[in-house]
Amino acid sequence: MRLLASTDFALRILMLLASRPLGVPVSVEMLARELGGLSRHHLHKIVQDLNGLGITRTMRGTSGGVLLAMAPAEIRLGHVIMQLEQEQAMAECFRPDAAGCTLLPGCRLRGALSGAQKHFYEHLDGYTLADVAVGEREAK
Amino acid sequence: MRLLASTDFALRILMLLASRPLGVPVSVEMLARELGGLSRHHLHKIVQDLNGLGITRTMRGTSGGVLLAMAPAEIRLGHVIMQLEQEQAMAECFRPDAAGCTLLPGCRLRGALSGAQKHFYEHLDGYTLADVAVGEREAK
Repeated sequence: MRLLASTDFALRILMLLASRPLGVPVSVEMLARELGGLSRHHLHKIVQDLNGLGITRTMRGTSGGVLLAMAPAEIRLGHVIMQLEQEQAMAECFRPDAAGCTLLPGCRLRGALSGAQKHFYEHLDGYTLADVAVGEREAK
Repeated sequence: MRLLASTDFALRILMLLASRPLGVPVSVEMLARELGGLSRHHLHKIVQDLNGLGITRTMRGTSGGVLLAMAPAEIRLGHVIMQLEQEQAMAECFRPDAAGCTLLPGCRLRGALSGAQKHFYEHLDGYTLADVAVGEREAK
């Protein structure tokens, strides 16, 4: 089981933002550096997705950058990951057309997998971004 | 969140095998056809993995093929999927070296994700292959 690389990076962006005082934007350059050389194109796309979900927002200008649009304690991990992964099919039978599987009409696996996915997200909803933020960076 | 394509196919192979009388092998040709043209190379690799886990076995000869090595009711889905996905890192921090993430020393996300993964597999362990086998093929 794996998350999208973009979800992985989105979570790290959120953790970095949560380690900063609320309201202070982080430049895209700093994020790119902290994320080990993620391309600016990829980074922009991920920030756009997070902005679209209302979790982050972007401030323009020389001292601009990305910042959280909500308090870390209000950002539930399960909900964030579920939204970031919503177009990701866990298996062939989760695709909207699912034309690639001949077992589908009688398949009961999908229900079992769906239930497991629900438990996965429910567990993560027990954590907020504040719970997993990188504490030792708060003073920087 | 997604499973490996090979896990997806492995589950379908198990469902097809479970729909046959125990002890009757299914030819690789028939499996390839049912799996919508999965390449024989890929199919062989997956069957080899399932054989390695002791879930299936291969009978040689003209009437040979692949068959379950255990009763469907003894094959727990969570356990099977966990074994098939054991080398798959859910996120960068799950890799053995995890060199790609600079947040690691202070990261608390990994624990949250691990717990969620545990709940995912535990839910699936509530199902056996017998529970999800494709019933209507049993008479064929």
